[in-house]
Amino acid sequence: MRQKLNMITLGVEDIERAVGFYEKGLGWKRSSASIDDLVLFPLGGIVLALYPRKLLAEDATVSAEGNGFSGITLSYNARNKNEVEQTLKQVEKLGAKIIKPAQKVFWGGFSGYFKDLDGHLIEVAHNPFWEMDENGNLQLP
Amino acid sequence: MRQKLNMITLGVEDIERAVGFYEKGLGWKRSSASIDDLVLFPLGGIVLALYPRKLLAEDATVSAEGNGFSGITLSYNARNKNEVEQTLKQVEKLGAKIIKPAQKVFWGGFSGYFKDLDGHLIEVAHNPFWEMDENGNLQLP
Repeated sequence: MRQKLNMITLGVEDIERAVGFYEKGLGWKRSSASIDDLVLFPLGGIVLALYPRKLLAEDATVSAEGNGFSGITLSYNARNKNEVEQTLKQVEKLGAKIIKPAQKVFWGGFSGYFKDLDGHLIEVAHNPFWEMDENGNLQLP
Repeated sequence: MRQKLNMITLGVEDIERAVGFYEKGLGWKRSSASIDDLVLFPLGGIVLALYPRKLLAEDATVSAEGNGFSGITLSYNARNKNEVEQTLKQVEKLGAKIIKPAQKVFWGGFSGYFKDLDGHLIEVAHNPFWEMDENGNLQLP
């Protein structure tokens, strides 16, 4: 298994509602490879997919039952503190729930968390110790 | 919020055990930016982080309680059917649980699922309709 993951799939209750957030709300461009209830957003190196939660569980052959902490978070790295604050304001207007308001964190950064419309936890962080390239990719040594 | 996610963080019960799977087992190279209980694997465009589950929940200011389906899956795209089968065999030897054996799937591909040592669901798929570049990145239109 090469050092790679190609896709993150978020199980969603209502595909139209989720698309409303990521595509119409944030303005993300879907891939034309999207089909029906599988909506694909290329993120550069990885693809974010939205897919009905029940069908995702079915595909994995697991029960769709589940609640509480998923044990996984996704992070978006902002270029500065102001972008962290503006991003959280933006997603809140789109119906996301701010779980942790933007704040200084112990490791020296500035970050907050929101839950998207399906409860997926997304961190918005500025890390002054990590470089990003012009495409917004982290440049870790 | 630009069309980007920078990091996937997997909450893990035992960081040494998780590192044993991804680093020692799969041979993935950690970034030297890794610290103590935050182990970082650059995947090209996104970083996979391993971090103690309780601390991750704390960071997000949510309860660490949770069970059942997380509602998120990660996918690894293999270059052919054989790589799907070999990858599932490899991770099974490393202690992962095969949830769905490699099989033809309705959309025309070939895939299976495993759970890593912390129960995170990872699909291993060959999709004959999606092109990959030499770095293993999907090239979606």
